[in-house]
Amino acid sequence: MKTRDKIIQASIALFNEQGERNVTTNHIAAHLGISPGNLYYHFRNKEDIILSIYDEYARNLLLETFPKASDDVKPLDAIILYMDAVFQAMMKFRFFYSNLPVLLAKNPLLREKYVEVQTFIADRVSNMMESLRTADMIRFEDDELADLVSILRIVNTFWLSFYQTQNMDNEIKESVFFEGVLKIIAILRPYATEAALPDFIKARDMYKQRFEDSLVAA
Amino acid sequence: MKTRDKIIQASIALFNEQGERNVTTNHIAAHLGISPGNLYYHFRNKEDIILSIYDEYARNLLLETFPKASDDVKPLDAIILYMDAVFQAMMKFRFFYSNLPVLLAKNPLLREKYVEVQTFIADRVSNMMESLRTADMIRFEDDELADLVSILRIVNTFWLSFYQTQNMDNEIKESVFFEGVLKIIAILRPYATEAALPDFIKARDMYKQRFEDSLVAA
Repeated sequence: MKTRDKIIQASIALFNEQGERNVTTNHIAAHLGISPGNLYYHFRNKEDIILSIYDEYARNLLLETFPKASDDVKPLDAIILYMDAVFQAMMKFRFFYSNLPVLLAKNPLLREKYVEVQTFIADRVSNMMESLRTADMIRFEDDELADLVSILRIVNTFWLSFYQTQNMDNEIKESVFFEGVLKIIAILRPYATEAALPDFIKARDMYKQRFEDSLVAA
Repeated sequence: MKTRDKIIQASIALFNEQGERNVTTNHIAAHLGISPGNLYYHFRNKEDIILSIYDEYARNLLLETFPKASDDVKPLDAIILYMDAVFQAMMKFRFFYSNLPVLLAKNPLLREKYVEVQTFIADRVSNMMESLRTADMIRFEDDELADLVSILRIVNTFWLSFYQTQNMDNEIKESVFFEGVLKIIAILRPYATEAALPDFIKARDMYKQRFEDSLVAA
């Protein structure tokens, strides 16, 4: 692995473990056994490292996790698989999401890239809702779509933060993703058509089972 | 005002304006024209100030904003007025919410108090949903209640953070509260009974109007 990549990988690990705020560029260099000067040859400062983490890793992951439309993937499965994948991607960069407004306020270029990705994601989630409606699985008025998409995205973006702030124990285990997906299904369920309700219940029961299995396994 | 209170009020203002992370106890003392020693006489460190801000101000505000049950306040108005009041309370302590998981991770006593308040709020929101159901305004299965309450609370807690991370302009104006309340109404709307739907549409249109008026006024 090249030094630049080593710095990025070590930073992700240290930020997640110790909190981005508690980790300096000197900590990162010491952790890798390189000189601070060597680190500064690759990155100007910590903000520059965070920008690269988002731009080169998190961003691509978020854009690539969109399931391709196909005859094999049903629209309900598409949205569930997508949300599941996003929760897992967020877990890899959890330091980023637990600190989001603060990190973006400090770094206008990061904000620009983040806002660009968010606009793209909003469009895709909106298209998924339209597909579900076209498949007669959910029903909503046109004037409800924008709010529905926002609500899905708020829960998706802040579920891990919410979870971490509801208990004295804030460790994130695999079970937390499954709970997150269950919240997404719960948002959609009241929109379900009568014909599609069994599919929603089935999806919910499947994730409930995964949730319970992951608790036993932990 | 006593010195202790002056320190708290100045800290709230500085944290909100400049971000809690960028404000030290020395900044707070200099801003008030007092010596750091005088500040340390009242508070051990910055975490201690934040704990007092939450415990003496934010906490009471969150617990007091609950509309009292009465014959005059309809259940739908009760939940809307409550969410509106909470958004406004959060605005006063916005530094706290834009940094929530990080601040709680640093301060176990703060986490303890926060979790206690959250448990209380979850119960009250749950009771409000039961009242709406008893009044035949919304319908849900018993097994849907916990998720519905979580979704309302996630959107309530993180709406300001979400708003701040969706645009290049992250200034919070009055219009943002009204948008937040509109999201709460949007979460409840698909649960509305046919008889109550006009009430939901009316509440939505009222907040849409407030939202538009606040944009013109700004």
